[in-house]
Amino acid sequence: MGRWEPGAAGRLHEAAMELYVERGFEQTTVAEIAQRAGVTARTFFRHYADKREVLFGGSEYLLAELSRALGTAPDGATPMEAVAIVLDAVAELLGTDREHSRRRQSIIDLNAELRERELIKMSRLAGALAGGLRDRGVAEPEATLAAEAGMVVLRVGFRRWVDSADAVDLRGEMRSALTALRTTVTDQPASRKPDQPTSRKPDQPASRKPD
Amino acid sequence: MGRWEPGAAGRLHEAAMELYVERGFEQTTVAEIAQRAGVTARTFFRHYADKREVLFGGSEYLLAELSRALGTAPDGATPMEAVAIVLDAVAELLGTDREHSRRRQSIIDLNAELRERELIKMSRLAGALAGGLRDRGVAEPEATLAAEAGMVVLRVGFRRWVDSADAVDLRGEMRSALTALRTTVTDQPASRKPDQPTSRKPDQPASRKPD
Repeated sequence: MGRWEPGAAGRLHEAAMELYVERGFEQTTVAEIAQRAGVTARTFFRHYADKREVLFGGSEYLLAELSRALGTAPDGATPMEAVAIVLDAVAELLGTDREHSRRRQSIIDLNAELRERELIKMSRLAGALAGGLRDRGVAEPEATLAAEAGMVVLRVGFRRWVDSADAVDLRGEMRSALTALRTTVTDQPASRKPDQPTSRKPDQPASRKPD
Repeated sequence: MGRWEPGAAGRLHEAAMELYVERGFEQTTVAEIAQRAGVTARTFFRHYADKREVLFGGSEYLLAELSRALGTAPDGATPMEAVAIVLDAVAELLGTDREHSRRRQSIIDLNAELRERELIKMSRLAGALAGGLRDRGVAEPEATLAAEAGMVVLRVGFRRWVDSADAVDLRGEMRSALTALRTTVTDQPASRKPDQPTSRKPDQPASRKPD
């Protein structure tokens, strides 16, 4: 950390996260967060509108990054290629501190109100992404389908990244989730091994034609 | 309608829907709903826990139908085939009265709290569907991906059904949405015509190998 303590904002954020984990989000008061951070409640409210904003303050930044990344997609990109570029950028932004993400997710998982807030955040992201795709000339329902599919990939990849000890790279997890989604929706059973022939039933001789 | 008025439940439901459209959900009181239905507020609360339940009372039934339909999918069905069977059953259940669905959706679209409730309902359905797929032996992330993809299809198909004058069949709209999702996530540009070759760039001779 070096010679200087982080400022009030950093201390408030850290104090809030610690208390949410120790006591639960619901049970933690703003006064307790301020006390642990060594500031007044008034200082808390200069940085955050409420307790929830400590966890969701990055949403606007995420929305802005999504729009920026979509703007970098080449003109000829298909809707899903454009979404994949956005997912890479989102992974870059969210994937820097797994311990923080894990702690945040564990707080959200334990509180119904926060889970709902996270759903609403994801829905806003999906809406913004679909709108951005329409601005690029993508028709409906393709724009909404690509955007919503992208959000599914984000959620599944993110969940695996925070839950699995061996999932070290968020971008890689999201890319794997996108590949798995493509396989799943096009009905190629992912669990079937390549050396098991699938084009004929085991009891059907290879030379037999299906006529 | 025949000789008899519908019972209190039917009258309450109709009165509530009318008032939600006329005055907005927020502005309508239980007393007003009861008055229009010709019953007391106490009778309202015998049928509904609150104003919101008039719009979301069918959620449990939808969850039950989802589980039942998943049980009818053949053992060898892929996750997405099983989800398609569930979607057909859900369409059967939800697709009987487009005027009612259109009215309900217009009420929800105008109220942030109701939109959030609808998101939460869809999330519960997705969770139940993923759980049902895991019970059938589908691994993660395939179970969650197939379930979430199914919910995307449901939302997009349902939206088109309520919004478009020519979308008369909910099951057909959902099937079209599933086909469009498959095309979209596998990056086959829907707008490209079959007679436009896509396997090589226009300025690249067909005989030229990419070495």
